[in-house]
Amino acid sequence: MEKKIKKVNAAILIIGNEILSGRTQDKNIIFLTNWLNSKCGISVNEVRIIPDIERVIIENILYLSKKFKYVFTTGGIGPTHDDITAQSISKAFKLKYEFHKEAYAILEKYYGKKNFNDGRKKMAKMPRNAKLIYNPSSAAPGFITKNVLSLPGVPSIMNSMIENCKIYLTKGAQIHSKTINLYTVESNISERLGEIQKKYKKNVEIGSYPFFRLGKIGVAIVTRSVSLMKLKKINIELLKFAKIKKIKILKL
Amino acid sequence: MEKKIKKVNAAILIIGNEILSGRTQDKNIIFLTNWLNSKCGISVNEVRIIPDIERVIIENILYLSKKFKYVFTTGGIGPTHDDITAQSISKAFKLKYEFHKEAYAILEKYYGKKNFNDGRKKMAKMPRNAKLIYNPSSAAPGFITKNVLSLPGVPSIMNSMIENCKIYLTKGAQIHSKTINLYTVESNISERLGEIQKKYKKNVEIGSYPFFRLGKIGVAIVTRSVSLMKLKKINIELLKFAKIKKIKILKL
Repeated sequence: MEKKIKKVNAAILIIGNEILSGRTQDKNIIFLTNWLNSKCGISVNEVRIIPDIERVIIENILYLSKKFKYVFTTGGIGPTHDDITAQSISKAFKLKYEFHKEAYAILEKYYGKKNFNDGRKKMAKMPRNAKLIYNPSSAAPGFITKNVLSLPGVPSIMNSMIENCKIYLTKGAQIHSKTINLYTVESNISERLGEIQKKYKKNVEIGSYPFFRLGKIGVAIVTRSVSLMKLKKINIELLKFAKIKKIKILKL
Repeated sequence: MEKKIKKVNAAILIIGNEILSGRTQDKNIIFLTNWLNSKCGISVNEVRIIPDIERVIIENILYLSKKFKYVFTTGGIGPTHDDITAQSISKAFKLKYEFHKEAYAILEKYYGKKNFNDGRKKMAKMPRNAKLIYNPSSAAPGFITKNVLSLPGVPSIMNSMIENCKIYLTKGAQIHSKTINLYTVESNISERLGEIQKKYKKNVEIGSYPFFRLGKIGVAIVTRSVSLMKLKKINIELLKFAKIKKIKILKL
Protein backbone atom coordinates (compact mmCIF):
# COMPACT_ATOMS: atom_id res chain seq x y z
CA MET A 1 0.00 0.00 0.00
CA GLU A 2 1.30 3.38 -0.92
CA LYS A 3 1.26 5.99 1.79
CA LYS A 4 -0.47 9.30 1.13
CA ILE A 5 1.89 11.75 -0.50
CA LYS A 6 1.86 15.38 0.53
CA LYS A 7 2.52 17.51 -2.49
CA VAL A 8 3.47 21.13 -1.92
CA ASN A 9 3.96 23.49 -4.83
CA ALA A 10 5.26 26.99 -5.45
CA ALA A 11 5.74 29.59 -8.15
CA ILE A 12 8.65 31.98 -8.62
CA LEU A 13 8.11 35.56 -9.75
CA ILE A 14 11.29 37.30 -10.91
CA ILE A 15 10.70 41.04 -10.89
CA GLY A 16 13.25 42.98 -12.90
CA ASN A 17 13.80 44.73 -16.20
CA GLU A 18 17.45 43.67 -16.17
CA ILE A 19 16.52 40.04 -16.83
CA LEU A 20 14.00 40.89 -19.55
CA SER A 21 16.45 43.19 -21.34
CA GLY A 22 19.11 40.50 -21.52
CA ARG A 23 21.52 42.54 -19.41
CA THR A 24 21.71 40.01 -16.61
CA GLN A 25 21.86 36.21 -16.61
CA ASP A 26 19.34 35.01 -14.06
CA LYS A 27 20.83 32.81 -11.35
CA ASN A 28 17.98 32.87 -8.89
CA ILE A 29 15.65 30.42 -10.62
CA ILE A 30 18.03 27.47 -10.50
CA PHE A 31 19.06 28.25 -6.93
CA LEU A 32 15.49 28.52 -5.67
CA THR A 33 14.16 25.50 -7.56
CA ASN A 34 17.02 23.35 -6.29
CA TRP A 35 16.67 24.53 -2.74
CA LEU A 36 12.90 24.09 -2.67
CA ASN A 37 13.11 20.64 -4.24
CA SER A 38 15.93 19.22 -2.20
CA LYS A 39 15.49 20.95 1.16
CA CYS A 40 11.72 21.36 1.38
CA GLY A 41 10.12 18.82 -0.96
CA ILE A 42 8.41 21.72 -2.70
CA SER A 43 7.92 21.55 -6.48
CA VAL A 44 8.16 24.73 -8.50
CA ASN A 45 5.33 24.54 -11.04
CA GLU A 46 5.74 27.88 -12.76
CA VAL A 47 8.23 30.71 -13.10
CA ARG A 48 7.47 34.15 -14.47
CA ILE A 49 9.79 37.03 -15.23
CA ILE A 50 8.07 40.41 -15.35
CA PRO A 51 9.09 44.08 -15.57
CA ASP A 52 9.11 46.67 -12.76
CA ILE A 53 5.56 47.80 -13.51
CA GLU A 54 3.12 48.06 -10.63
CA ARG A 55 0.04 46.90 -12.52
CA VAL A 56 1.87 43.85 -13.86
CA ILE A 57 3.27 42.93 -10.43
CA ILE A 58 -0.18 43.21 -8.84
CA GLU A 59 -1.84 41.03 -11.50
CA ASN A 60 0.80 38.33 -11.16
CA ILE A 61 0.86 38.35 -7.36
CA LEU A 62 -2.91 37.92 -7.22
CA TYR A 63 -2.96 35.15 -9.83
CA LEU A 64 0.00 33.14 -8.57
CA SER A 65 -0.77 33.46 -4.85
CA LYS A 66 -4.20 32.03 -5.50
CA LYS A 67 -2.99 29.19 -7.68
CA PHE A 68 0.04 27.98 -5.73
CA LYS A 69 0.78 27.21 -2.10
CA TYR A 70 3.73 29.63 -2.04
CA VAL A 71 5.01 32.40 -4.26
CA PHE A 72 8.65 33.49 -4.09
CA THR A 73 9.44 36.90 -5.52
CA THR A 74 12.97 38.13 -6.15
CA GLY A 75 13.97 41.70 -6.89
CA GLY A 76 12.54 45.13 -6.33
CA ILE A 77 13.03 45.47 -2.57
CA GLY A 78 15.99 47.85 -2.58
CA PRO A 79 16.13 51.61 -2.01
CA THR A 80 15.67 53.01 -5.53
CA HIS A 81 12.69 54.27 -7.53
CA ASP A 82 12.47 51.03 -9.55
CA ASP A 83 12.11 48.96 -6.34
CA ILE A 84 8.34 48.69 -6.09
CA THR A 85 7.72 45.12 -4.97
CA ALA A 86 6.60 45.95 -1.41
CA GLN A 87 4.20 48.70 -2.42
CA SER A 88 2.77 46.57 -5.25
CA ILE A 89 2.14 43.60 -2.94
CA SER A 90 0.48 45.96 -0.45
CA LYS A 91 -1.85 47.17 -3.18
CA ALA A 92 -2.50 43.65 -4.46
CA PHE A 93 -3.69 42.51 -1.03
CA LYS A 94 -5.23 45.87 -0.06
CA LEU A 95 -2.88 46.21 2.89
CA LYS A 96 -1.39 49.43 4.17
CA TYR A 97 2.17 50.09 2.93
CA GLU A 98 3.92 51.28 6.06
CA PHE A 99 7.08 51.16 8.15
CA HIS A 100 7.70 47.79 9.77
CA LYS A 101 8.89 48.58 13.28
CA GLU A 102 11.44 45.81 13.62
CA ALA A 103 12.77 46.27 10.07
CA TYR A 104 13.14 49.99 10.77
CA ALA A 105 15.09 49.29 13.96
CA ILE A 106 17.34 46.74 12.21
CA LEU A 107 18.19 49.15 9.39
CA GLU A 108 18.66 52.15 11.68
CA LYS A 109 21.10 50.17 13.77
CA TYR A 110 22.93 48.87 10.69
CA TYR A 111 23.41 52.26 8.99
CA GLY A 112 23.59 54.41 12.12
CA LYS A 113 21.06 57.15 12.89
CA LYS A 114 23.05 59.80 11.02
CA ASN A 115 23.26 57.85 7.76
CA PHE A 116 19.73 56.47 7.83
CA ASN A 117 18.48 58.43 4.80
CA ASP A 118 15.17 58.19 2.96
CA GLY A 119 16.36 55.55 0.48
CA ARG A 120 17.44 53.32 3.35
CA LYS A 121 14.26 53.98 5.27
CA LYS A 122 12.27 52.87 2.22
CA MET A 123 13.61 49.34 2.73
CA ALA A 124 11.71 49.21 6.05
CA LYS A 125 8.38 49.90 4.35
CA MET A 126 6.28 46.79 3.84
CA PRO A 127 2.72 45.57 3.65
CA ARG A 128 1.07 45.79 7.09
CA ASN A 129 1.64 42.69 9.24
CA ALA A 130 4.38 41.33 7.00
CA LYS A 131 6.73 38.98 8.81
CA LEU A 132 10.48 39.39 8.34
CA ILE A 133 12.95 37.17 6.53
CA TYR A 134 16.25 38.09 8.14
CA ASN A 135 19.24 39.10 6.03
CA PRO A 136 22.66 38.14 7.39
CA SER A 137 24.56 39.85 4.53
CA SER A 138 23.25 43.38 4.23
CA ALA A 139 20.63 43.84 6.95
CA ALA A 140 17.64 44.83 4.77
CA PRO A 141 15.13 42.06 5.47
CA GLY A 142 12.86 40.25 3.08
CA PHE A 143 9.31 39.62 4.16
CA ILE A 144 6.34 37.32 3.86
CA THR A 145 2.84 38.63 3.13
CA LYS A 146 0.15 35.95 3.21
CA ASN A 147 1.75 33.16 1.12
CA VAL A 148 4.16 35.44 -0.77
CA LEU A 149 7.82 35.44 0.25
CA SER A 150 9.76 38.46 -1.05
CA LEU A 151 13.52 38.22 -1.42
CA PRO A 152 16.14 40.50 -2.97
CA GLY A 153 17.36 40.05 -6.54
CA VAL A 154 21.12 40.08 -5.88
CA PRO A 155 21.92 36.35 -5.86
CA SER A 156 24.58 36.35 -3.12
CA ILE A 157 22.29 38.22 -0.73
CA MET A 158 19.22 36.18 -1.65
CA ASN A 159 21.11 32.92 -1.16
CA SER A 160 22.32 34.01 2.28
CA MET A 161 18.71 34.55 3.40
CA ILE A 162 17.12 31.41 2.09
CA GLU A 163 17.43 29.30 5.25
CA ASN A 164 15.44 31.99 7.08
CA CYS A 165 12.45 31.21 4.87
CA LYS A 166 12.15 27.70 6.28
CA ILE A 167 10.13 28.63 9.36
CA TYR A 168 7.33 29.85 7.10
CA LEU A 169 7.15 26.76 4.87
CA THR A 170 5.27 23.50 5.13
CA LYS A 171 7.46 20.68 3.91
CA GLY A 172 6.26 18.35 1.17
CA ALA A 173 7.26 14.78 0.48
CA GLN A 174 10.85 14.55 -0.72
CA ILE A 175 11.16 14.41 -4.48
CA HIS A 176 13.72 11.85 -5.62
CA SER A 177 15.55 11.96 -8.90
CA LYS A 178 17.65 9.45 -10.82
CA THR A 179 19.65 9.94 -13.99
CA ILE A 180 20.94 7.39 -16.47
CA ASN A 181 23.20 8.70 -19.23
CA LEU A 182 23.02 6.66 -22.41
CA TYR A 183 25.33 6.95 -25.41
CA THR A 184 22.56 7.09 -27.98
CA VAL A 185 20.23 9.61 -29.58
CA GLU A 186 16.74 10.41 -28.38
CA SER A 187 15.01 9.06 -31.45
CA ASN A 188 16.48 5.57 -30.79
CA ILE A 189 14.85 5.28 -27.41
CA SER A 190 11.77 7.46 -27.73
CA GLU A 191 9.36 4.59 -28.29
CA ARG A 192 10.48 2.57 -25.27
CA LEU A 193 10.57 5.67 -23.06
CA GLY A 194 7.02 6.47 -24.05
CA GLU A 195 5.93 2.96 -23.08
CA ILE A 196 7.63 3.19 -19.71
CA GLN A 197 6.10 6.61 -19.05
CA LYS A 198 2.66 5.18 -19.83
CA LYS A 199 3.22 2.25 -17.47
CA TYR A 200 4.35 4.46 -14.57
CA LYS A 201 2.06 7.33 -15.37
CA LYS A 202 1.10 8.18 -11.83
CA ASN A 203 3.49 10.42 -9.96
CA VAL A 204 6.52 9.72 -12.10
CA GLU A 205 8.08 12.20 -14.50
CA ILE A 206 10.46 10.93 -17.16
CA GLY A 207 12.49 13.43 -19.11
CA SER A 208 15.13 12.92 -21.79
CA TYR A 209 17.82 15.51 -22.43
CA PRO A 210 20.46 15.34 -25.15
CA PHE A 211 24.05 15.98 -24.03
CA PHE A 212 27.43 16.41 -25.69
CA ARG A 213 30.40 15.10 -23.77
CA LEU A 214 33.98 14.78 -24.97
CA GLY A 215 32.82 14.80 -28.56
CA LYS A 216 30.19 12.12 -28.04
CA ILE A 217 26.48 12.64 -28.03
CA GLY A 218 24.14 11.02 -25.58
CA VAL A 219 20.86 11.31 -23.77
CA ALA A 220 20.32 11.79 -20.05
CA ILE A 221 17.18 10.02 -18.88
CA VAL A 222 15.97 11.78 -15.77
CA THR A 223 13.25 10.22 -13.64
CA ARG A 224 11.64 12.12 -10.77
CA SER A 225 9.14 10.95 -8.21
CA VAL A 226 8.32 10.98 -4.54
CA SER A 227 8.42 7.17 -4.74
CA LEU A 228 12.01 5.96 -4.69
CA MET A 229 10.74 2.42 -5.28
CA LYS A 230 9.15 3.39 -8.57
CA LEU A 231 12.34 5.10 -9.70
CA LYS A 232 14.34 1.97 -8.92
CA LYS A 233 11.94 -0.17 -10.92
CA ILE A 234 12.12 2.18 -13.89
CA ASN A 235 15.89 2.25 -13.75
CA ILE A 236 16.00 -1.54 -13.91
CA GLU A 237 13.77 -1.44 -17.00
CA LEU A 238 15.95 1.21 -18.62
CA LEU A 239 19.17 -0.71 -17.98
CA LYS A 240 17.60 -3.89 -19.35
CA PHE A 241 16.54 -2.03 -22.48
CA ALA A 242 20.01 -0.48 -22.92
CA LYS A 243 21.58 -3.94 -22.66
CA ILE A 244 19.28 -5.43 -25.30
CA LYS A 245 19.91 -2.51 -27.64
CA LYS A 246 23.64 -2.59 -26.87
CA ILE A 247 23.61 1.06 -25.81
CA LYS A 248 26.63 2.08 -23.74
CA ILE A 249 26.09 3.78 -20.42
CA LEU A 250 28.13 6.76 -19.25
CA LYS A 251 29.14 6.32 -15.64
CA LEU A 252 29.85 9.60 -13.87
CA MET B 1 9.52 66.96 -33.10
CA GLU B 2 9.85 63.37 -32.10
CA LYS B 3 9.18 60.84 -34.79
CA LYS B 4 6.62 58.14 -34.17
CA ILE B 5 8.20 55.15 -32.47
CA LYS B 6 7.21 51.67 -33.49
CA LYS B 7 7.24 49.43 -30.44
CA VAL B 8 7.19 45.70 -31.01
CA ASN B 9 6.98 43.30 -28.09
CA ALA B 10 7.27 39.60 -27.44
CA ALA B 11 6.97 36.97 -24.74
CA ILE B 12 9.12 33.90 -24.20
CA LEU B 13 7.63 30.59 -23.10
CA ILE B 14 10.19 28.08 -21.86
CA ILE B 15 8.64 24.61 -21.90
CA GLY B 16 10.53 22.09 -19.84
CA ASN B 17 10.50 20.25 -16.54
CA GLU B 18 14.31 20.32 -16.47
CA ILE B 19 14.36 24.07 -15.80
CA LEU B 20 11.62 23.91 -13.15
CA SER B 21 13.31 21.05 -11.32
CA GLY B 22 16.59 22.94 -11.05
CA ARG B 23 18.41 20.33 -13.11
CA THR B 24 19.36 22.73 -15.89
CA GLN B 25 20.51 26.34 -15.87
CA ASP B 26 18.48 28.15 -18.49
CA LYS B 27 20.57 29.87 -21.13
CA ASN B 28 17.86 30.56 -23.69
CA ILE B 29 16.22 33.55 -22.01
CA ILE B 30 19.30 35.75 -22.04
CA PHE B 31 20.19 34.71 -25.59
CA LEU B 32 16.70 35.40 -26.95
CA THR B 33 16.19 38.67 -25.08
CA ASN B 34 19.55 39.99 -26.26
CA TRP B 35 18.99 38.93 -29.83
CA LEU B 36 15.47 40.35 -30.01
CA ASN B 37 16.55 43.62 -28.42
CA SER B 38 19.69 44.23 -30.38
CA LYS B 39 18.91 42.66 -33.75
CA CYS B 40 15.17 43.28 -34.08
CA GLY B 41 14.24 46.17 -31.79
CA ILE B 42 11.78 43.83 -30.09
CA SER B 43 11.25 44.14 -26.32
CA VAL B 44 10.58 41.02 -24.30
CA ASN B 45 7.84 41.96 -21.85
CA GLU B 46 7.30 38.65 -20.13
CA VAL B 47 8.93 35.25 -19.73
CA ARG B 48 7.26 32.15 -18.39
CA ILE B 49 8.70 28.75 -17.58
CA ILE B 50 6.16 25.94 -17.51
CA PRO B 51 6.16 22.14 -17.28
CA ASP B 52 5.57 19.63 -20.10
CA ILE B 53 1.83 19.47 -19.45
CA GLU B 54 -0.51 19.87 -22.40
CA ARG B 55 -3.23 21.80 -20.58
CA VAL B 56 -0.69 24.27 -19.19
CA ILE B 57 1.00 24.78 -22.57
CA ILE B 58 -2.36 25.42 -24.26
CA GLU B 59 -3.44 27.96 -21.64
CA ASN B 60 -0.18 29.86 -21.90
CA ILE B 61 -0.03 29.82 -25.71
CA LEU B 62 -3.55 31.24 -25.92
CA TYR B 63 -2.93 33.91 -23.32
CA LEU B 64 0.49 35.07 -24.49
CA SER B 65 -0.24 34.95 -28.23
CA LYS B 66 -3.19 37.25 -27.66
CA LYS B 67 -1.31 39.66 -25.44
CA PHE B 68 1.98 40.03 -27.31
CA LYS B 69 2.99 40.57 -30.92
CA TYR B 70 5.18 37.44 -30.89
CA VAL B 71 5.63 34.43 -28.65
CA PHE B 72 8.85 32.42 -28.72
CA THR B 73 8.67 28.93 -27.29
CA THR B 74 11.72 26.81 -26.57
CA GLY B 75 11.71 23.10 -25.81
CA GLY B 76 9.46 20.16 -26.43
CA ILE B 77 9.94 19.70 -30.17
CA GLY B 78 12.16 16.61 -30.09
CA PRO B 79 11.30 12.95 -30.68
CA THR B 80 10.41 11.73 -27.17
CA HIS B 81 7.14 11.31 -25.27
CA ASP B 82 7.75 14.50 -23.25
CA ASP B 83 8.02 16.59 -26.45
CA ILE B 84 4.48 17.84 -26.79
CA THR B 85 4.85 21.46 -27.92
CA ALA B 86 3.66 20.95 -31.52
CA GLN B 87 0.59 18.92 -30.57
CA SER B 88 -0.30 21.37 -27.78
CA ILE B 89 -0.06 24.39 -30.09
CA SER B 90 -2.22 22.55 -32.61
CA LYS B 91 -4.87 22.01 -29.96
CA ALA B 92 -4.61 25.58 -28.69
CA PHE B 93 -5.35 26.98 -32.15
CA LYS B 94 -7.70 24.15 -33.17
CA LEU B 95 -5.44 23.19 -36.07
CA LYS B 96 -4.84 19.69 -37.33
CA TYR B 97 -1.62 18.10 -35.99
CA GLU B 98 -0.15 16.48 -39.07
CA PHE B 99 2.99 15.76 -41.08
CA HIS B 100 4.52 18.84 -42.65
CA LYS B 101 5.54 17.74 -46.15
CA GLU B 102 8.75 19.74 -46.40
CA ALA B 103 9.81 18.96 -42.82
CA TYR B 104 9.20 15.27 -43.52
CA ALA B 105 11.35 15.44 -46.65
CA ILE B 106 14.16 17.29 -44.84
CA LEU B 107 14.24 14.75 -42.02
CA GLU B 108 13.96 11.71 -44.28
CA LYS B 109 16.90 12.98 -46.30
CA TYR B 110 18.93 13.75 -43.17
CA TYR B 111 18.44 10.36 -41.49
CA GLY B 112 18.12 8.23 -44.63
CA LYS B 113 14.97 6.26 -45.46
CA LYS B 114 16.13 3.18 -43.54
CA ASN B 115 16.77 5.02 -40.29
CA PHE B 116 13.75 7.28 -40.42
CA ASN B 117 11.94 5.75 -37.46
CA ASP B 118 8.78 6.84 -35.69
CA GLY B 119 10.56 9.08 -33.18
CA ARG B 120 12.25 10.95 -36.00
CA LYS B 121 9.06 11.14 -38.01
CA LYS B 122 7.38 12.74 -35.00
CA MET B 123 9.61 15.79 -35.48
CA ALA B 124 7.91 16.42 -38.83
CA LYS B 125 4.46 16.63 -37.23
CA MET B 126 3.27 20.20 -36.76
CA PRO B 127 0.15 22.32 -36.66
CA ARG B 128 -1.43 22.53 -40.15
CA ASN B 129 0.01 25.36 -42.27
CA ALA B 130 2.95 25.96 -39.95
CA LYS B 131 5.90 27.59 -41.68
CA LEU B 132 9.38 26.22 -41.11
CA ILE B 133 12.31 27.70 -39.24
CA TYR B 134 15.28 25.91 -40.76
CA ASN B 135 17.85 24.17 -38.57
CA PRO B 136 21.44 24.18 -39.84
CA SER B 137 22.74 22.03 -36.94
CA SER B 138 20.54 18.97 -36.68
CA ALA B 139 17.95 19.23 -39.47
CA ALA B 140 14.74 19.07 -37.39
CA PRO B 141 13.08 22.40 -38.14
CA GLY B 142 11.31 24.77 -35.79
CA PHE B 143 8.08 26.30 -36.97
CA ILE B 144 5.82 29.31 -36.74
CA THR B 145 2.08 28.99 -36.12
CA LYS B 146 0.19 32.28 -36.27
CA ASN B 147 2.43 34.54 -34.12
CA VAL B 148 4.09 31.72 -32.17
CA LEU B 149 7.65 30.74 -33.09
CA SER B 150 8.68 27.32 -31.76
CA LEU B 151 12.36 26.57 -31.27
CA PRO B 152 14.23 23.66 -29.67
CA GLY B 153 15.44 23.78 -26.07
CA VAL B 154 19.07 22.75 -26.63
CA PRO B 155 20.83 26.14 -26.61
CA SER B 156 23.47 25.42 -29.28
CA ILE B 157 20.83 24.22 -31.74
CA MET B 158 18.39 27.01 -30.90
CA ASN B 159 21.10 29.64 -31.33
CA SER B 160 22.06 28.27 -34.73
CA MET B 161 18.47 28.71 -35.95
CA ILE B 162 17.74 32.17 -34.67
CA GLU B 163 18.68 34.09 -37.81
CA ASN B 164 16.10 32.03 -39.70
CA CYS B 165 13.36 33.58 -37.57
CA LYS B 166 14.04 37.04 -38.97
CA ILE B 167 11.94 36.67 -42.11
CA TYR B 168 8.85 36.23 -39.95
CA LEU B 169 9.43 39.26 -37.70
CA THR B 170 8.48 42.91 -38.00
CA LYS B 171 11.32 45.06 -36.72
CA GLY B 172 10.70 47.63 -34.01
CA ALA B 173 12.60 50.80 -33.28
CA GLN B 174 16.07 50.06 -31.98
CA ILE B 175 16.29 50.11 -28.21
CA HIS B 176 19.42 51.91 -27.00
CA SER B 177 21.05 51.32 -23.67
CA LYS B 178 23.70 53.19 -21.69
CA THR B 179 25.40 52.19 -18.46
CA ILE B 180 27.27 54.31 -15.93
CA ASN B 181 29.02 52.47 -13.12
CA LEU B 182 29.31 54.47 -9.93
CA TYR B 183 31.36 53.59 -6.87
CA THR B 184 28.61 54.20 -4.37
CA VAL B 185 25.64 52.41 -2.83
CA GLU B 186 22.10 52.58 -4.15
CA SER B 187 20.71 54.36 -1.13
CA ASN B 188 23.07 57.31 -1.74
CA ILE B 189 21.67 58.01 -5.16
CA SER B 190 18.12 56.73 -4.95
CA GLU B 191 16.53 60.15 -4.42
CA ARG B 192 18.23 61.78 -7.40
CA LEU B 193 17.55 58.77 -9.62
CA GLY B 194 13.88 58.94 -8.73
CA GLU B 195 13.80 62.62 -9.72
CA ILE B 196 15.46 61.93 -13.05
CA GLN B 197 13.10 59.03 -13.76
CA LYS B 198 10.15 61.33 -13.07
CA LYS B 199 11.52 64.00 -15.40
CA TYR B 200 12.10 61.55 -18.28
CA LYS B 201 9.11 59.41 -17.56
CA LYS B 202 8.06 58.82 -21.12
CA ASN B 203 9.81 56.02 -22.94
CA VAL B 204 12.87 55.90 -20.70
CA GLU B 205 13.63 53.11 -18.28
CA ILE B 206 16.20 53.72 -15.55
CA GLY B 207 17.44 50.77 -13.54
CA SER B 208 20.04 50.57 -10.80
CA TYR B 209 21.93 47.36 -10.09
CA PRO B 210 24.45 46.82 -7.30
CA PHE B 211 27.76 45.24 -8.32
CA PHE B 212 30.86 43.91 -6.58
CA ARG B 213 34.14 44.38 -8.41
CA LEU B 214 37.60 43.72 -7.11
CA GLY B 215 36.40 44.02 -3.56
CA LYS B 216 34.61 47.30 -4.12
CA ILE B 217 30.89 47.80 -4.23
CA GLY B 218 29.13 49.99 -6.75
CA VAL B 219 25.95 50.59 -8.66
CA ALA B 220 25.39 50.25 -12.38
CA ILE B 221 22.88 52.80 -13.64
CA VAL B 222 21.32 51.42 -16.78
CA THR B 223 19.17 53.62 -18.98
CA ARG B 224 17.19 52.23 -21.91
CA SER B 225 15.16 53.99 -24.53
CA VAL B 226 14.46 54.18 -28.23
CA SER B 227 15.58 57.82 -28.01
CA LEU B 228 19.36 58.05 -27.95
CA MET B 229 19.07 61.80 -27.37
CA LYS B 230 17.18 61.29 -24.14
CA LEU B 231 19.77 58.80 -22.92
CA LYS B 232 22.55 61.27 -23.62
CA LYS B 233 20.75 63.99 -21.68
CA ILE B 234 20.21 61.68 -18.73
CA ASN B 235 23.82 60.61 -18.76
CA ILE B 236 24.95 64.24 -18.57
CA GLU B 237 22.69 64.74 -15.55
CA LEU B 238 24.03 61.61 -13.89
CA LEU B 239 27.66 62.58 -14.42
CA LYS B 240 26.97 66.08 -13.06
CA PHE B 241 25.37 64.57 -9.98
CA ALA B 242 28.27 62.16 -9.46
CA LYS B 243 30.72 65.08 -9.66
CA ILE B 244 28.83 67.13 -7.07
CA LYS B 245 28.60 64.14 -4.73
CA LYS B 246 32.24 63.22 -5.39
CA ILE B 247 31.27 59.73 -6.48
CA LYS B 248 33.96 57.94 -8.47
CA ILE B 249 33.09 56.41 -11.82
CA LEU B 250 34.28 53.00 -12.95
CA LYS B 251 35.46 53.13 -16.53
CA LEU B 252 35.30 49.78 -18.29
